[in-house]
Amino acid sequence: MSLIRKKIEDKGLWLPDPMKLPPGVILPFESVHVIGNQAYISGHIALNKDGSFMEPFGKVGAEVSLEEGYEAAKFTALSILASLERTIGDLDRVTHWVKALGMVNGALDFNQFPAVINGFSDLILSLYEEKGKHARSAVGLAGLPFNSPVEIEAQIQFD
Amino acid sequence: MSLIRKKIEDKGLWLPDPMKLPPGVILPFESVHVIGNQAYISGHIALNKDGSFMEPFGKVGAEVSLEEGYEAAKFTALSILASLERTIGDLDRVTHWVKALGMVNGALDFNQFPAVINGFSDLILSLYEEKGKHARSAVGLAGLPFNSPVEIEAQIQFD
Amino acid sequence: MSLIRKKIEDKGLWLPDPMKLPPGVILPFESVHVIGNQAYISGHIALNKDGSFMEPFGKVGAEVSLEEGYEAAKFTALSILASLERTIGDLDRVTHWVKALGMVNGALDFNQFPAVINGFSDLILSLYEEKGKHARSAVGLAGLPFNSPVEIEAQIQFD
Repeated sequence: MSLIRKKIEDKGLWLPDPMKLPPGVILPFESVHVIGNQAYISGHIALNKDGSFMEPFGKVGAEVSLEEGYEAAKFTALSILASLERTIGDLDRVTHWVKALGMVNGALDFNQFPAVINGFSDLILSLYEEKGKHARSAVGLAGLPFNSPVEIEAQIQFD
Repeated sequence: MSLIRKKIEDKGLWLPDPMKLPPGVILPFESVHVIGNQAYISGHIALNKDGSFMEPFGKVGAEVSLEEGYEAAKFTALSILASLERTIGDLDRVTHWVKALGMVNGALDFNQFPAVINGFSDLILSLYEEKGKHARSAVGLAGLPFNSPVEIEAQIQFD
Repeated sequence: MSLIRKKIEDKGLWLPDPMKLPPGVILPFESVHVIGNQAYISGHIALNKDGSFMEPFGKVGAEVSLEEGYEAAKFTALSILASLERTIGDLDRVTHWVKALGMVNGALDFNQFPAVINGFSDLILSLYEEKGKHARSAVGLAGLPFNSPVEIEAQIQFD
């Protein structure tokens, strides 16, 4: 069994099914685009196990608390890992987490974006240790698709 | 004749002239920065054929409708293609569209950013088919240069 | 002595110490993540020489003027150069500035983001000349960490 898969399950976590889109929504791009040994990961959001959008929705610092934002970033990492597993077959193939752009749907005057996106970084580092180290920005957007509190795009290398 | 050029003209579309900047505006960077077989494409906006900024200006969901936002994203793709052709000489040289960051100047409470940036992705896929597949994020910014409704940056590979 | 170091000092500028974080703030990622000959530079902000956050804080176009935003972008370039020097040892090793994403904490209705981020590009080009050429986007965010007026992430190559 994949070591990373086992670590995820040992934490009581899971990888969600592919995103279930609302009727009429078309996303004409790839969740993960592989070129050579690089995988470019499109912006992902937090999903329930069945692929539906995970609540809460809204702006961190208003409808969504900092703690809920941290959780949303953690589950966004799991959405990314699920897409990555479907694309490269085994999460143990990842050799480097390269970079991540952490985008927070922030309320007016909220600016603790790093503390939110730590939900992503903490999980990736816990799973991948040295290979999980990455460059990162964590910033406040004016809005995110489906009113998601967090969206993250990333880049990895694998062999 | 370049196949991609022909496809663009067959659609009744065109590639704009280089961007005409307002007096006093200096942009000290390259529209397209080539390193080896990679081209890093700076943030572009929609232009008229003569290189002037294309109307409408403003926020999608307020002054600019969703449909106008989609058109702005389509014309942003054409601005990018024009810069790319000036840099690499022939659009047929593109072997992979790698990724795009679609930035929408969004009104408060607007969040249909993917439907806006589809104007870019639909055109690129229609022109490049398999080579046009890309990773993407589509998100809401608080503001964009020149009050443009859409700005897109991208990365491609060519030979 | 490093040529770039000398140029920085000849301008009366300096490279700041590592960022001093407020109590309780944890940033579990790398300032600069090196893979092969690529360095991915995390989002940086302007720092004083001792590594403390540089004033002013707030939104460009409101609490922070355009001129102060330009200065913040210049000092953000110095923060990036300081992190880069700590990681690769000598700033003369940089062979290509690849790209930069310039993020401005913008007031409502402010959109002169390029004029702000020129503070970064002008310094990099002045130091690195041909090697300093880069692709760039300069856009308005809804908020930035620590209420910084400017944050910039970048990518370079070195040998």
